[in-house]
Amino acid sequence: MRMYDIIARKRDGFAHTREELEFLIHGFVNGTIGEEQVAAWLMAVYFQGMTGEETAVLTSLMEHSGDQIDFGSIDGIVVDKHSTGGVGDKTTLVVAPLVAAAGVLVGKLSGRGLGFTGGTIDKLEAINGFQTAISAQQFLQQVQQIGIALAGQTANLVPADKKLYALRDLTATVESIPLIASSIMSKKLASGAHKILLDVKFGSGAFMQQPEQAELLARTMVQIGNSLGRQTVAVLSSMEEPLGYAVGNSLEVQEAMDTLQGHGPADLTELCLTLSGQMIFLGQKAATAEQGYQMAAALLEQGAAWQKFEQLVNAQGGNLPQGLPQAQYQLAVCASQSGVVSGIDAKAIGHCSMLLGAGRESKHGAIDLSAGVLLRKKTNDTVKAGEQLAILHYNAAYQQRAQEAALVLQQAYQIDNGPVQQSPLVWKILCD
Amino acid sequence: MRMYDIIARKRDGFAHTREELEFLIHGFVNGTIGEEQVAAWLMAVYFQGMTGEETAVLTSLMEHSGDQIDFGSIDGIVVDKHSTGGVGDKTTLVVAPLVAAAGVLVGKLSGRGLGFTGGTIDKLEAINGFQTAISAQQFLQQVQQIGIALAGQTANLVPADKKLYALRDLTATVESIPLIASSIMSKKLASGAHKILLDVKFGSGAFMQQPEQAELLARTMVQIGNSLGRQTVAVLSSMEEPLGYAVGNSLEVQEAMDTLQGHGPADLTELCLTLSGQMIFLGQKAATAEQGYQMAAALLEQGAAWQKFEQLVNAQGGNLPQGLPQAQYQLAVCASQSGVVSGIDAKAIGHCSMLLGAGRESKHGAIDLSAGVLLRKKTNDTVKAGEQLAILHYNAAYQQRAQEAALVLQQAYQIDNGPVQQSPLVWKILCD
Repeated sequence: MRMYDIIARKRDGFAHTREELEFLIHGFVNGTIGEEQVAAWLMAVYFQGMTGEETAVLTSLMEHSGDQIDFGSIDGIVVDKHSTGGVGDKTTLVVAPLVAAAGVLVGKLSGRGLGFTGGTIDKLEAINGFQTAISAQQFLQQVQQIGIALAGQTANLVPADKKLYALRDLTATVESIPLIASSIMSKKLASGAHKILLDVKFGSGAFMQQPEQAELLARTMVQIGNSLGRQTVAVLSSMEEPLGYAVGNSLEVQEAMDTLQGHGPADLTELCLTLSGQMIFLGQKAATAEQGYQMAAALLEQGAAWQKFEQLVNAQGGNLPQGLPQAQYQLAVCASQSGVVSGIDAKAIGHCSMLLGAGRESKHGAIDLSAGVLLRKKTNDTVKAGEQLAILHYNAAYQQRAQEAALVLQQAYQIDNGPVQQSPLVWKILCD
Repeated sequence: MRMYDIIARKRDGFAHTREELEFLIHGFVNGTIGEEQVAAWLMAVYFQGMTGEETAVLTSLMEHSGDQIDFGSIDGIVVDKHSTGGVGDKTTLVVAPLVAAAGVLVGKLSGRGLGFTGGTIDKLEAINGFQTAISAQQFLQQVQQIGIALAGQTANLVPADKKLYALRDLTATVESIPLIASSIMSKKLASGAHKILLDVKFGSGAFMQQPEQAELLARTMVQIGNSLGRQTVAVLSSMEEPLGYAVGNSLEVQEAMDTLQGHGPADLTELCLTLSGQMIFLGQKAATAEQGYQMAAALLEQGAAWQKFEQLVNAQGGNLPQGLPQAQYQLAVCASQSGVVSGIDAKAIGHCSMLLGAGRESKHGAIDLSAGVLLRKKTNDTVKAGEQLAILHYNAAYQQRAQEAALVLQQAYQIDNGPVQQSPLVWKILCD
């Protein structure tokens, strides 16, 4: 078998056999196939796509390219959750303890973020003392003992994806549905959970702008999971304006804690209850997702979700009473006209948070955990000229960029005459 | 400017600006842009194509990436000839001295062959003592003094094409019209001739199978040449059966010499006169290509073309009386049935010649100059069962493969009942 022929087959629109994909992934990981050949193949995949079967085989090969978590010794159903990410998305911090309070086991490996804000692991590190680099043994023990553990991905989790993603990032081949789907799902599968819930977002603040594209990605991932023996459900949700009011690591942790204590923003609470309902159903702690939703709402109200969060933080060395890091400066950005907020460009708010230091600009870049944006107005809120739209939080090193951020924020707000019809937060739920 | 954005633009179907192509070619040649990024770009070009203007700019950038021959000091019009190659194509050996005899200056750099037989440079080396590695100074002097010089390409002629071609060869991106056209034309332009004649072949024994594809390639090259100030004409000719009777280096040189002495095969002689007519017209030694054709026919008959060939061989150190290398063994392949030859698969004959050692199997592979195939029958010849179809010429090292070659040859001949209608040898002539 020659890599040349594999490239030519994809270029000409054929589907690969399992043997071809095996040859490709093994050769790429151990270096016998050069990056230039894989790069040409990636561009051919960009144009010709992959069948569902090819995508599942590719995902499975990537899954097995490195370490895998084995929950075989655990008594119970472990359910994982993945979000395709968006501006102000702190749902994992709420949903994971909430469903654990319902008895669903959550053993979740998360990544760091590149982009507008940090990933879940960055956010957790805003909590004084919280350890995200725990051993596999502690991880499994904690899942068994308190039903929840959140840790960073080990270096050798899906090395094929690490290498392939780095190459896609150089060669403008990131935006390919089968490549995105296999990248995400290979990490989920290697993380070992029995069942998987996907939160796939669309809109200005999401990776996928169009709902149809997001649906295609969601369906591809659901089919990969189901065809490889892991029941998978996807929730498609809108990300036109930021989720909740907080954007930035410690600001988002605070908002997640407020939500766990029952007084979070309505949109965040609603989405968290929907996602939790699905996970509780997948974890077989409720007969339907609707019953799971009701159960989640009750656990939130009773304080059980908050208790589980405290238990998680304590188990991983965190110190809540110490408080979260605060930025040195706060700058209020005010409305220049009166009216009703008819839209907030989520992507622009993400850019604003990045300008303040809350996101990574390069893979190994630093991140300022205390920086970010706290919105004061959301869509359909009435606003008067001079009234605060949002507060920028930042430290001395970012003082110069705060002015630019303020301008970006002001332009992100659209202020008109009357209320607008908002699209529902949850658009579709896919299970096959 | 970032290579990532250039890849994305081509991926999305945009035409590149001159600055983008400059950034790409310069960066690739001096190593600041990695092969993986260029490979992805090549595959995007494969799918999205390039406009005529882009292709001309790319060609010009490649042309200037290394050394260029400067015929500025030469008094007269230098005309180059390029063939896209085919089985039994020895036209350069006939046409170059023929048009030089008409007073057209021929200073031509040729390549070695990869594939069925050697290239022009390999064939010339079948002549005892013939030097193809001559200095630029000798090359120019010889063109001025005797009107003809044939030499190998220097190492630094169009380094951008060398690097790009090697990458295309690894990444299944060879078969792209703008990339093929810019590769060929960059070498022609750097070779310095004032005008260019292209012999573009189609059919089983050619690089392009379909006439429409060959025409598209020819038109692209003609437009590149004309838009960059070098008058270019293309002759589209058929390569369904091999050209002439000889396939293999020294066998082809012998047939070319026979043709120069006026007793060559009809098809080869006809094509050489057509090509020569165009070149004599381009070189302004005749008012029309038709007059050029008549002039060439007369020069052949008078022996002037043969004298020019002898003059060329002497000038470059060759020794004709020494004779050409002969293979140790000759094996006759006979017809298994009687009838009329209705077709000879040129590609299969090429494969047969390769099996006997006449072609290179890898870039730096050895070549057996004396090996090859001498056909005894061509299309529409009558044949009796047991009569010779062809003679295989080979040396001891290839004895084992000669049996396989005999089988391939026998299957290449199609023998039926009556004569068939043959497509004309010259299909079209393009000048814009």
